[in-house]
Amino acid sequence: MNLLIIIKILSFVVGLEGISFLLPALTGLIYREYSGALCYLISSLCCIIFCVLIITVLKKRKIKRDGFFGKDAFVVTALSWVILSLIGAIPYVITGDIPNYIDAVFETASGFTTTGASVIPDVEKVMHCNLLFRSLTHWMGGVGVLVFILMIMPMAGGSPLSIMKAESTGPSISKLVPRAKDTALILYGLYIALTVLEFVLLLFDPSIPVFDNICHTFGTAGTGGFSVRNVSVAAYSPYVQTVTTVFMLLFGVNFSFYYLLLARKFREAFRMEEVKWYFAIYLGAVVMMLGCLASTGYNFAKNILNVSFTCASLMTTTGYTIVDFGDWPTFTHCVFVVLMFVGGCAGSTGGGFKVARVMLIVKQIGKEIRQQIHPNRIYHIRVDKKPVSNDVLKSCNTLFIADVAVMAVSVLIVALDGFDLTTSFAAVHATLNNIGMGIGNVCVGDNFSVFSPLSKLVMTFDMLAGRLEIIPMLILFHPQTWKK
Amino acid sequence: MNLLIIIKILSFVVGLEGISFLLPALTGLIYREYSGALCYLISSLCCIIFCVLIITVLKKRKIKRDGFFGKDAFVVTALSWVILSLIGAIPYVITGDIPNYIDAVFETASGFTTTGASVIPDVEKVMHCNLLFRSLTHWMGGVGVLVFILMIMPMAGGSPLSIMKAESTGPSISKLVPRAKDTALILYGLYIALTVLEFVLLLFDPSIPVFDNICHTFGTAGTGGFSVRNVSVAAYSPYVQTVTTVFMLLFGVNFSFYYLLLARKFREAFRMEEVKWYFAIYLGAVVMMLGCLASTGYNFAKNILNVSFTCASLMTTTGYTIVDFGDWPTFTHCVFVVLMFVGGCAGSTGGGFKVARVMLIVKQIGKEIRQQIHPNRIYHIRVDKKPVSNDVLKSCNTLFIADVAVMAVSVLIVALDGFDLTTSFAAVHATLNNIGMGIGNVCVGDNFSVFSPLSKLVMTFDMLAGRLEIIPMLILFHPQTWKK
Repeated sequence: MNLLIIIKILSFVVGLEGISFLLPALTGLIYREYSGALCYLISSLCCIIFCVLIITVLKKRKIKRDGFFGKDAFVVTALSWVILSLIGAIPYVITGDIPNYIDAVFETASGFTTTGASVIPDVEKVMHCNLLFRSLTHWMGGVGVLVFILMIMPMAGGSPLSIMKAESTGPSISKLVPRAKDTALILYGLYIALTVLEFVLLLFDPSIPVFDNICHTFGTAGTGGFSVRNVSVAAYSPYVQTVTTVFMLLFGVNFSFYYLLLARKFREAFRMEEVKWYFAIYLGAVVMMLGCLASTGYNFAKNILNVSFTCASLMTTTGYTIVDFGDWPTFTHCVFVVLMFVGGCAGSTGGGFKVARVMLIVKQIGKEIRQQIHPNRIYHIRVDKKPVSNDVLKSCNTLFIADVAVMAVSVLIVALDGFDLTTSFAAVHATLNNIGMGIGNVCVGDNFSVFSPLSKLVMTFDMLAGRLEIIPMLILFHPQTWKK
Repeated sequence: MNLLIIIKILSFVVGLEGISFLLPALTGLIYREYSGALCYLISSLCCIIFCVLIITVLKKRKIKRDGFFGKDAFVVTALSWVILSLIGAIPYVITGDIPNYIDAVFETASGFTTTGASVIPDVEKVMHCNLLFRSLTHWMGGVGVLVFILMIMPMAGGSPLSIMKAESTGPSISKLVPRAKDTALILYGLYIALTVLEFVLLLFDPSIPVFDNICHTFGTAGTGGFSVRNVSVAAYSPYVQTVTTVFMLLFGVNFSFYYLLLARKFREAFRMEEVKWYFAIYLGAVVMMLGCLASTGYNFAKNILNVSFTCASLMTTTGYTIVDFGDWPTFTHCVFVVLMFVGGCAGSTGGGFKVARVMLIVKQIGKEIRQQIHPNRIYHIRVDKKPVSNDVLKSCNTLFIADVAVMAVSVLIVALDGFDLTTSFAAVHATLNNIGMGIGNVCVGDNFSVFSPLSKLVMTFDMLAGRLEIIPMLILFHPQTWKK
């Protein structure tokens, strides 16, 4: 293991988090929450000084340029996210808005992993600085923290691609351009542009204050779902809800699609199978739900916004709500569970299993059946007319299986709290797939404070495992990783 | 497709079912249910005459000895099981005990697939002939119907192994002896011996009448779970319950284990990893449940039989009950769901995903993690010290994924009935894994009559898909199968 590089990257992570503390500190000053501002400022300084110190010490030691391999990338990614959560929790505790440290770590991990599950019963009593930091973690976690560091850090040896691979989502990383650094730059550019666009569009509506707008836009961009209002997006006008629906969907699309559009490769862009599947699944779900609701006497016209918003929110794993769907028919809840599992596209900020993988799995089942019918023919699985390598298929299947296994074990532990099966399952599902909103007792209001500390730790693990696609987190806990 | 052989095998299946009708006809005579006896007798004659007619007609046509391949084996297996269910349902309808044909098909499929899910609200009002047939279907379905036909039918060409492979359970077929026919013979011998042993042991207890004993033993042997009493095994003494626990567990063991014991290969037998895992999972579950129940104030001593019985019943997917566990803590329900999914050993009469496959999946996850830590090393997955082929691993993964996919689609359809999520999920889980007993509204009493006809059809499909391990049933509905 290349310990020096790992320490260097981790101290960059701490430094970056320190810098990110400055924004809530400024917010605290604006809203005259001086104690909060001071707390963020001191935390920020500590982090930055720590980072500078370590980097200075490390500069004197020669770092081997080779020897930074797959394992190291997984370890550094998993550790970075754990450290982000552990340090980010400190201001919540000191400001007193989340006095319990485990709760605060849960909230921070929920932020960075863009889950949006919250332990705060009443967000409207929370300080502005904390609210802004909560939403900022969504925005930072959306595309990835290490991808950002790769962009700014002089990489001393090793392959930045392996880190990008460990942190970014989807079955195979799509390098837009030959250099990983440039790909990261383009990704962040697109991300910022879309974020600004949503912010500007929401400025047109006076019903949403600018502070709410910023937090809300951060939450949409990262497909996170933290809101600054107890009733979530139901507090705002239908215009805001409609814009949010559109942007949730846009942030769930594979960013390669936008890159192809910008590069004027329209043909390639509109041929992307994953994007077609994504919208087909979304529209199919909306139509099925409307049909089901209409047949049980719900008002069709009134529900079209509710249904399209909720489906977009769940499929992109954002977790914003505008309606309490607890009393909707069971069928709709089943559709929700499936949508939540499918998630957004690979290479988007959305969580879940990813449309690309669902596509691969459906194609594999079809292939297996055709293969049994014609045992002597050779079938290939193709996506976008290109054959998919066996390694990608294998890792997709392994992830699916690991996903279900982690879910089963987590539900077992969470069930010790004694909530009913649906609630325990929904809570784990909501955290492992980074949705943040379950069905049952944790339906609307996102309140995870009812669970025991053990369950919260398990769910914190699940959120991180869900965001990093399980393998990095499992590697972190495997004894062989730490052997010489 | 080799249509002639398929028709020949199917008519043998019809003939066999006709012969099996004779036993309930005799029961009807003994219990003076003359209408029932007559009905079974006529059905029997019709089936046998039909079979003889077809075979006579076919004898005049020359059957190609080659050209009976994988696809045909799957098709003939799936069709056989569908036909068994369709024909076996007729006497239920004519005798009037289950007037609705869809209900009767559900009940018959539930019997043959050894699920044990019932639509009969009060079994104690049902005629003895019907009760015996219900339990007989369990016994016939346990090891397999086609395996039996292979033993007695002069196979005109084609490989009997491909049919055995399609009907028997587990990731890879273990041929005990070189000839498939001999393997089938040994399997049936062991099956009959164990069945007789349980029957004899239960004879010692006067509290269980001989009729109940026969039905009950059939249900245990096939790991089915149909009972002739409304309260299931709770109606009998602790002695019967203990014997049943032991025999449920024994019928869930891979039959190769018994063969190895009989062949005096003790070392090989006790080295079988799957059997070790099977008992380890069972004991682990029992200990966890006892711990959980003890901590919530349940009487430990009183519960040791209840817990060990229930765990054995659910893990082997039998579905007998002696206690209403509806009010047990949620944690125990989660353990149940996991046990039900795991199921019995490969090559046993137990349903579920099979211990062998769970073992392969756990080993694969472990391997994947080690592989990421040391990307350049080559790891092999070994079972019983032999490396497992990639094909076996791949089909295991495909089955897992197909299983979850079929479950998701089924839950979606069943949810249209409007029951809560736990009930819908539990009903599908109970049928797809051939358990017959769910959690929630279908907890104890096994009553599936509350569901709509559409749900019953879906669950009938699930039972057959679960018993035949999904692929054969999917092939049956694939358009390419029926193309020239």
